Amino acid sequence: SDMAFGIRELSKKLAQIKILMHVRHIFILAKAHDETLIRHTRETTDWLLTKDPNYRVYVEKTLENNKLFDSSGLLDKNPSYRGRLRFWTNELCAEKPQTFDIVLALGGDGTVLYASWLFQRIVPPVLAFSLGSLGFLTKFDYEQYPITLSRAFAEGITVSLRLRFEATIMRSQNRNNGPRDLVEELIGEESEDHHTHRPDGTHNILNEVVVDRGPNPTMSSIELFGDDEHFTTVQADGVCVSTPTGSTAYNLAAGGSLCHPDNPVILVTAICAHTLSFRPIILPDTIVLRAGVPYDARTSSWASFDGRERVELRPGDYVTISASRFPFPSVLPLDRKSKDWIDSISRTLQWNSRQRQKSFKEWSS
Amino acid sequence: SDMAFGIRELSKKLAQIKILMHVRHIFILAKAHDETLIRHTRETTDWLLTKDPNYRVYVEKTLENNKLFDSSGLLDKNPSYRGRLRFWTNELCAEKPQTFDIVLALGGDGTVLYASWLFQRIVPPVLAFSLGSLGFLTKFDYEQYPITLSRAFAEGITVSLRLRFEATIMRSQNRNNGPRDLVEELIGEESEDHHTHRPDGTHNILNEVVVDRGPNPTMSSIELFGDDEHFTTVQADGVCVSTPTGSTAYNLAAGGSLCHPDNPVILVTAICAHTLSFRPIILPDTIVLRAGVPYDARTSSWASFDGRERVELRPGDYVTISASRFPFPSVLPLDRKSKDWIDSISRTLQWNSRQRQKSFKEWSS
Amino acid sequence: SDMAFGIRELSKKLAQIKILMHVRHIFILAKAHDETLIRHTRETTDWLLTKDPNYRVYVEKTLENNKLFDSSGLLDKNPSYRGRLRFWTNELCAEKPQTFDIVLALGGDGTVLYASWLFQRIVPPVLAFSLGSLGFLTKFDYEQYPITLSRAFAEGITVSLRLRFEATIMRSQNRNNGPRDLVEELIGEESEDHHTHRPDGTHNILNEVVVDRGPNPTMSSIELFGDDEHFTTVQADGVCVSTPTGSTAYNLAAGGSLCHPDNPVILVTAICAHTLSFRPIILPDTIVLRAGVPYDARTSSWASFDGRERVELRPGDYVTISASRFPFPSVLPLDRKSKDWIDSISRTLQWNSRQRQKSFKEWSS
Amino acid sequence: SDMAFGIRELSKKLAQIKILMHVRHIFILAKAHDETLIRHTRETTDWLLTKDPNYRVYVEKTLENNKLFDSSGLLDKNPSYRGRLRFWTNELCAEKPQTFDIVLALGGDGTVLYASWLFQRIVPPVLAFSLGSLGFLTKFDYEQYPITLSRAFAEGITVSLRLRFEATIMRSQNRNNGPRDLVEELIGEESEDHHTHRPDGTHNILNEVVVDRGPNPTMSSIELFGDDEHFTTVQADGVCVSTPTGSTAYNLAAGGSLCHPDNPVILVTAICAHTLSFRPIILPDTIVLRAGVPYDARTSSWASFDGRERVELRPGDYVTISASRFPFPSVLPLDRKSKDWIDSISRTLQWNSRQRQKSFKEWSS
Repeated sequence: SDMAFGIRELSKKLAQIKILMHVRHIFILAKAHDETLIRHTRETTDWLLTKDPNYRVYVEKTLENNKLFDSSGLLDKNPSYRGRLRFWTNELCAEKPQTFDIVLALGGDGTVLYASWLFQRIVPPVLAFSLGSLGFLTKFDYEQYPITLSRAFAEGITVSLRLRFEATIMRSQNRNNGPRDLVEELIGEESEDHHTHRPDGTHNILNEVVVDRGPNPTMSSIELFGDDEHFTTVQADGVCVSTPTGSTAYNLAAGGSLCHPDNPVILVTAICAHTLSFRPIILPDTIVLRAGVPYDARTSSWASFDGRERVELRPGDYVTISASRFPFPSVLPLDRKSKDWIDSISRTLQWNSRQRQKSFKEWSS
Repeated sequence: SDMAFGIRELSKKLAQIKILMHVRHIFILAKAHDETLIRHTRETTDWLLTKDPNYRVYVEKTLENNKLFDSSGLLDKNPSYRGRLRFWTNELCAEKPQTFDIVLALGGDGTVLYASWLFQRIVPPVLAFSLGSLGFLTKFDYEQYPITLSRAFAEGITVSLRLRFEATIMRSQNRNNGPRDLVEELIGEESEDHHTHRPDGTHNILNEVVVDRGPNPTMSSIELFGDDEHFTTVQADGVCVSTPTGSTAYNLAAGGSLCHPDNPVILVTAICAHTLSFRPIILPDTIVLRAGVPYDARTSSWASFDGRERVELRPGDYVTISASRFPFPSVLPLDRKSKDWIDSISRTLQWNSRQRQKSFKEWSS
Repeated sequence: SDMAFGIRELSKKLAQIKILMHVRHIFILAKAHDETLIRHTRETTDWLLTKDPNYRVYVEKTLENNKLFDSSGLLDKNPSYRGRLRFWTNELCAEKPQTFDIVLALGGDGTVLYASWLFQRIVPPVLAFSLGSLGFLTKFDYEQYPITLSRAFAEGITVSLRLRFEATIMRSQNRNNGPRDLVEELIGEESEDHHTHRPDGTHNILNEVVVDRGPNPTMSSIELFGDDEHFTTVQADGVCVSTPTGSTAYNLAAGGSLCHPDNPVILVTAICAHTLSFRPIILPDTIVLRAGVPYDARTSSWASFDGRERVELRPGDYVTISASRFPFPSVLPLDRKSKDWIDSISRTLQWNSRQRQKSFKEWSS
Repeated sequence: SDMAFGIRELSKKLAQIKILMHVRHIFILAKAHDETLIRHTRETTDWLLTKDPNYRVYVEKTLENNKLFDSSGLLDKNPSYRGRLRFWTNELCAEKPQTFDIVLALGGDGTVLYASWLFQRIVPPVLAFSLGSLGFLTKFDYEQYPITLSRAFAEGITVSLRLRFEATIMRSQNRNNGPRDLVEELIGEESEDHHTHRPDGTHNILNEVVVDRGPNPTMSSIELFGDDEHFTTVQADGVCVSTPTGSTAYNLAAGGSLCHPDNPVILVTAICAHTLSFRPIILPDTIVLRAGVPYDARTSSWASFDGRERVELRPGDYVTISASRFPFPSVLPLDRKSKDWIDSISRTLQWNSRQRQKSFKEWSS
């Protein structure tokens, strides 16, 4: 058991990695239709290209001809920028993610989710600036970007390797042999038959996979499997399967627990369960979960990935969810690494560590 | 990240260990004041002593002169038992736990908690028989004990190494220098001063540590610390700090999540929080938690360990809680190792994996 | 205060009314596409028409030419049925509800909701038979229908007057004068202007009105008003506004309380609130609630009524919800009136009043 | 049903009564050991005695010789005060509550609970001043007391008649005839026997009755009855039976709903239920509840009344709880009567009706 304990310590250490970077290719991510963000993107780009002649800065392709960004103005002002101001496309992110040494995200937590969506496989370290109050994923104040970036590039960064899920939609294949049973097909005798379903798209997600009733006014029945076991049939508006990072998002709204991002776990929470016997469940991230629509369901369910898309799951379809091989490297604040998560929680839950909270119960005042 | 992932796999494998035993010294644990259990203890003892002349069987000292157990009757019937029927005391468990190759617990989950209490440091593998319905920790049907034990001793056993907590009460030491502040003393400038508190007893616990208002009719203020951070001041009836094993006990009653026992986590759940901003929290088991009573509290709080004792914590006192170096080896069912936990959950939450649960909402029947 | 107390007693007595009926026109309601229910409808019709030559029995118009119901077979067999076997349409329910002395519903709780939907204004007393296990609204076992109906028609019935809501959709009217503010328009200085919104349909509902995000993957912002006060802006998947009757349906799934049907209250429960500060609220049924979509919302919300329809609410639209003048008279079991609700609750929550429930916490077994 | 509806309207109007007072005897209530409150009591007393020679002001007997209050100083300064500055005792409150035209409470919500405790039967109207932020029951800012009192005495006041409970402890009487069953004795055949229990003290309470495990580390089994029905055996840390006024106190901590004080209901909420099948329940205030300890319980439970006292309930004892004939008249703010409750809720839950709350979920920022 001392060994087991040692492994646990080791595992924790691996979850946070110190990286000394030889930065050359810098990727800037921001909503390209928000005027303030375009101005900030331009300012940061200018600052970076001036700072070091070896830097190449990539901004979104749609900014190339954007009047506000005014790329030709930038190039005219400083001819040395030519060839070093570059433009990224979704395809470039998908095909050559290793091009980029670091991603600078400007915006809110939603922008960080967008970075996760863009980089479906290898993700460069993501350093996220908030323009307003800090969030769970946006840990740096944009006002301080020159000092933040100077220190990060000089001293190195520490990244937290955030667990992502790999979620694959599995479509039921048409067959003409009578009534079918999803439980039988997935874990029963028919589970040897690999022709019952075919994959239809994989998503790497940072927050959560939700399977819910979508536009239906009625509840969903969702079959839930872990490895080769059938857990239960969830009668609910839906099921939220969340990473530790996503525990403060939809999972919390659905009644799940707050979860430290270093925990190697999967959080399964029913959304408006219509039975009394479902409680949020914390599973090891080594389990492969499957959530599917029974063949005899009256309606489809819908799967969504980091709240971005809703894909219809017809009766017999399911989603597999497992720990991704491609975690999300989130750059941690320089001097407050260890207490970073507690800081985020305190800000969000309005805990005030020195001043007592007002209790709503005053028995004896 | 592939490495990190490999470590996670490894860690999971270590949480369940296959053991081939050379069994000689068998420890039987049962409530010594329950007639049925005394009869079963006698029957099992008889069966074991007959089965193999090398076996020594230890039963509780109080049974030595118990009429129902009738040890002299056993010895008279079979003189070969002499010297092989032995009697254990609490002191023997504390001082020579390595004497015993295996513990057979007869009873309910409470008996397993009692085993954890008896063996505060090294715990022999515990194989727990239930006399009624199976529980979270009592995984074997007593009716089948001959076949269960024969197979276990012949083929070996698999144990799940259950995380225990090491909880130490820290007493504030009297000093004559004005008003004191627990936060300052624990993580502020005064934290270098090692004379503010002294330890007053350590408990290894399997389910949970609860710090609550005890007999006070009013709520408690509890200062909560993780490593060197002050999390928050909890205004509540109490705080439940639970192991994954304890997640189905008091933690669940207080609104916490169900947690797979292999997860290396600590569950912190407020009991009747009197603020709106507390939610159950899942922390890594590498964190050292401290829960204390502020110096300006009007009343004491009480700490209890696996529901067994209540110790008064006066203003300024606190409890440290961290992963114990002495996990609890719980013997898993022979053929259903991987699905053991889901089986327990299904039984308890009355999930029925094949028959749909009756929903309380019927919109369209 | 004694007077106030007397009024409360009186009010309770009025909520349950004993009615001696002079039954002549009997309305039978069942799903017309369920074979078993068509058979039962035919059997009950036959039994009634035979029992008393003064009875007229109304079945759904679609059964007139249904092969299984075989109305011509019935008439051929007993010519006295001619003119006494009649067929109802939705229009007849809407226009002449007072035609019917009683409604017999066969099916589940969903059939009773359908009765409420059919009779939008005056509702005849509804006696609901269950074909399986009894429900919250289906209080009679169909197996016993001859004795149930004989006694009811001879001895009279007791009805529980269930609160219904009157919900009206209010559409924002186009105007060309700059940015608009729903709070201003509803309770601010502009609230005198009666041209900001126009009604677009009223529903009398028995269970709940839900305003939610519908097919949107993102949450909703919903402005909530009570009489002339703005309560709050709910950030959630939706809001469930439930009658006491509906408290065991969607309200319970969303985390609301169980509520005795005689309570004159409105239950407001957020669905997956995305803030920590919303809790279920119990309001007097004399309050007029309004739930609307802010003008600056990015997306529409959807309103549904007893789970039947989803109507889009565009930014600026709202729904008013108030106690209906047309309650729903639900016939109570003959001999167990007073404990009827507790019986329903016990069945549903699987309370067993004599046998102790198995607790999931066993400290000391 | 129109009549039923009219009754409901009437009932609501009765819950708030406008009173024109002929004020002569004014009762001041404040903690007599808080220096600030003693100063304020003195100031208010002085102001009142000066304002009108017909006023008599009663302060707590313990202030008569209190140095800070300095009653002789007051009398010396203004001899007309003689005979008009009077002192109250607990006995006077109990025996002649009708002496007082109005109670002025200075402090927090706890002081109002103390007023309810002092006046166990008839309660004079209570006008409660807060010295800090307003509470649920302290609706007037002390800073404004001269204008508040001048207007109240001249124009009259509106009081909200808050429901109180009458709670009576019933002690099991010794009998020598074998095993006993509480359910049998309360609602079974033995319920005709009036010698099984005798009353042992009655409390009128404003917030809640709690029956819980008190100092026991284990949970309680509590038998719950409504009128002549056995609801269930609650396995929990305890049961909270709350008035609407108390809904924002312990009831909320235990997971109950917020409830408007005009609702004629009883809120029953389990405290850390150890079964999955208990949910908060809203009952009509016409029901008589009984909560008792089963005869075969291993330990006692404890009853507390408005959080003030803990009384041991031994096996076989129970508490009856019903609407009191003596409601608590709470004086409402002059100009904000209708929105008073929503104001309290908004303050407490930190709802900000015009500024949107920060959601913890940001999918798309």
